[in-house]
Amino acid sequence: MKHFTQFSDIGDFQESLKEMKKIKEDPFAEHARGKHKTLGLFFFNPSLRTRLSTQKAAQNLGLNIIVMNFTHEGWQLETAEGAIMNGDKAEHVKDAVGVLGQYCDIIGLRSFANLKNLTQDYEEETLSQFIKYAGVPILSLESASRHPLQSLADALTISEHSTQPRPKVVLSWAPHPRALPQAVPNSFVEFIKNMEVELIITHPEGYALSEQFTEGVRIEYDQDKALTGADFVYAKNWSSFTQYGQILTQDLSWTISEEKMKLTQNAKFMHCLPVRRNVVVSDAVIDSPQSLVLAQAENRIYAAQWALQTLLGGLSK
Amino acid sequence: MKHFTQFSDIGDFQESLKEMKKIKEDPFAEHARGKHKTLGLFFFNPSLRTRLSTQKAAQNLGLNIIVMNFTHEGWQLETAEGAIMNGDKAEHVKDAVGVLGQYCDIIGLRSFANLKNLTQDYEEETLSQFIKYAGVPILSLESASRHPLQSLADALTISEHSTQPRPKVVLSWAPHPRALPQAVPNSFVEFIKNMEVELIITHPEGYALSEQFTEGVRIEYDQDKALTGADFVYAKNWSSFTQYGQILTQDLSWTISEEKMKLTQNAKFMHCLPVRRNVVVSDAVIDSPQSLVLAQAENRIYAAQWALQTLLGGLSK
Amino acid sequence: MKHFTQFSDIGDFQESLKEMKKIKEDPFAEHARGKHKTLGLFFFNPSLRTRLSTQKAAQNLGLNIIVMNFTHEGWQLETAEGAIMNGDKAEHVKDAVGVLGQYCDIIGLRSFANLKNLTQDYEEETLSQFIKYAGVPILSLESASRHPLQSLADALTISEHSTQPRPKVVLSWAPHPRALPQAVPNSFVEFIKNMEVELIITHPEGYALSEQFTEGVRIEYDQDKALTGADFVYAKNWSSFTQYGQILTQDLSWTISEEKMKLTQNAKFMHCLPVRRNVVVSDAVIDSPQSLVLAQAENRIYAAQWALQTLLGGLSK
Repeated sequence: MKHFTQFSDIGDFQESLKEMKKIKEDPFAEHARGKHKTLGLFFFNPSLRTRLSTQKAAQNLGLNIIVMNFTHEGWQLETAEGAIMNGDKAEHVKDAVGVLGQYCDIIGLRSFANLKNLTQDYEEETLSQFIKYAGVPILSLESASRHPLQSLADALTISEHSTQPRPKVVLSWAPHPRALPQAVPNSFVEFIKNMEVELIITHPEGYALSEQFTEGVRIEYDQDKALTGADFVYAKNWSSFTQYGQILTQDLSWTISEEKMKLTQNAKFMHCLPVRRNVVVSDAVIDSPQSLVLAQAENRIYAAQWALQTLLGGLSK
Repeated sequence: MKHFTQFSDIGDFQESLKEMKKIKEDPFAEHARGKHKTLGLFFFNPSLRTRLSTQKAAQNLGLNIIVMNFTHEGWQLETAEGAIMNGDKAEHVKDAVGVLGQYCDIIGLRSFANLKNLTQDYEEETLSQFIKYAGVPILSLESASRHPLQSLADALTISEHSTQPRPKVVLSWAPHPRALPQAVPNSFVEFIKNMEVELIITHPEGYALSEQFTEGVRIEYDQDKALTGADFVYAKNWSSFTQYGQILTQDLSWTISEEKMKLTQNAKFMHCLPVRRNVVVSDAVIDSPQSLVLAQAENRIYAAQWALQTLLGGLSK
Repeated sequence: MKHFTQFSDIGDFQESLKEMKKIKEDPFAEHARGKHKTLGLFFFNPSLRTRLSTQKAAQNLGLNIIVMNFTHEGWQLETAEGAIMNGDKAEHVKDAVGVLGQYCDIIGLRSFANLKNLTQDYEEETLSQFIKYAGVPILSLESASRHPLQSLADALTISEHSTQPRPKVVLSWAPHPRALPQAVPNSFVEFIKNMEVELIITHPEGYALSEQFTEGVRIEYDQDKALTGADFVYAKNWSSFTQYGQILTQDLSWTISEEKMKLTQNAKFMHCLPVRRNVVVSDAVIDSPQSLVLAQAENRIYAAQWALQTLLGGLSK
């Protein structure tokens, strides 16, 4: 694995799930592997779980860690090719990234969608420049269109908590006061459709995700119908892809409530966090024994550690 | 010791002072104790001494450290129970803290008083939720009503510099341009009244601290009378507790000056820092050989190390 | 070496270049040297290369590292002697620095020129107070008038890439939309004039650097004449020293372009970064094989490591 930015970077998905479970049993087994190697974590956006779980994973591997917030600790970066840089931006991303590659053996990058320009976001302008100019493995800490570490942790969590040979997994859109990227649901679909599950996406009309991700996956506009008999309910808001970045509805009848959960087969509730309580999901559901949100968060460590360990292996080859 | 947020968390205070002195003599003796353990330090407010001394202490113990500023690196947190989260706040403190508990073996937290709502501050709304939801030991890095690490370091400093069997210690209110919390004086009284000292508090009328802390301690409105014969003068501003969060006076006759110090028995001068020079204390006093402010700051390391070492011991039991 | 803030702190410059090359060959050879020592890195201004390369160097030496941004993580600092501190600033720099000295074995400090008051900047108000009050070695991470780590890395880079016994090195002023300090060109001249090179400075009239640095160095107002036959072209903008902090011209005919480079003897192009592309230098030049900008950035690690290793040696003596 050269970089880890999307599902297709993984060689053998089933094998990676097994490897994560092994890492979870003995997180310090490979503590010597990171010796004298430096992981740089670079944030263009806020982060809590990703920031902390990736540091924890790196510490488990004995890596040196450098964390930097580009928002206020460094310089504003220009991304346009050929720009005459006489404005606000002090440095071109290609120079900054070339430099980071001199100091880091692996680079983690968080760079969200701006939700203004679909092409720019889905072509992953910033992530692509990091891959092009860094000269070292890139670990996505959530990019404009994907959040692979979250989905890898989600896959592990489903795998651990599944009691069925082929569980029904429902990804349900939920209301939210802000326009959010599609990164989490995109990645979720990209990963989970490769598991032995029945995957259904449910959302109001106008909220279809890019077919690049949903091809071959059942989409159901009737949330109740989708939830019926579900084993896992994964709630998540996203803004419209087709009317790019728009909020089309904040319909609270899509909130995951106890009533909704009664339609399921005693389903587990999942969310990547942060979550708007009593908007995306009711307190009663997220605080119930069926809620896996903390289990998901814990598994972020092992997803990150799997990715780092794999990228480090690549370094020594 | 399960958490360290107040005096009563300490089992044997005299013993803890002895243990700190031992740690100070050989700070690296327990360097193996923190192996593979992670300390998370989370700040809702600025910090210099606490931030640095706690990191230094953790490094002495071989702990992994993760530092995060909630003010601008993470998400804004909701604290109200049952809130419908459709406003500015992206995550509920209970979810955030539950997650932190997945990644950290000990959590350090700084969360100041807002000085607007006495009940909220003195019920320690944020600290309480950390204790309730983290599932791991909490180390207070200053909460709304207490600053135990400061007071533990102050106790050590008094213990080291005392030349009397029962020294006279005066906590004196001092003027300040801003409204400050009562956390430092509250903790100071809570700790120092348990030492073999004669403790007196002096402040203008209207500045009485909560009786919860001052019960049994002599209060003297005449600063000169209080200072007479003192062995230690601890200066500190605080805003009014009874007229909660108000500045009632900025009377500069309360500034600790050379004249005031002449009333004492060649007293040592103490302050927790940061200090407003020539408002709280004159340059001549804080820069004199009698000033212990740097000794106090250094002892912050050993107070933090004692607390971490004790909490880590608790982990292994 | 007691501190590293300027050229004159170095004992034997030729020897230091050899030592850096040795460190570069085996960066982990002295990994035990930093054991149980703490490097504090304190930033009053943004930083990317300096921040990361110094951390990397410190990790190579096995140092503990504490990083802090004074801009938003700590308190605002007062610098005036004898100030009555009843305004915005919560702490005097002398108290803050005295405290840092309790926690750190070496202190790295970045504090830029404000470009408003020449005397204040060139007397190095903040740096001087760190030296005066810290009680431990100070490593300049760029001060108001100098950037020694950059120039040490530049000297190493010139030394590595020189194919002439006495190469011609041209420091050329270049246009820029913002008023920048003279720290980089000052230090560059201070260091490079002590190498076996022919050093020429070229700039428009009004941009003369302080004679304190340029004494004995040829200055040429005709950029084309200066560039002719050059082996190294070091481009850098700075604001006027004589009309302190002013932008006198943004004349784009000073931009280092392919045409300009044709005047040279196939010169190497150098810049400290961050750089305004197509203002200071054209894309074609900085992206050409002649560009050493990434080599310079990499050498920042070994310059920092040399400085830290030397300062640590001083500690053990």
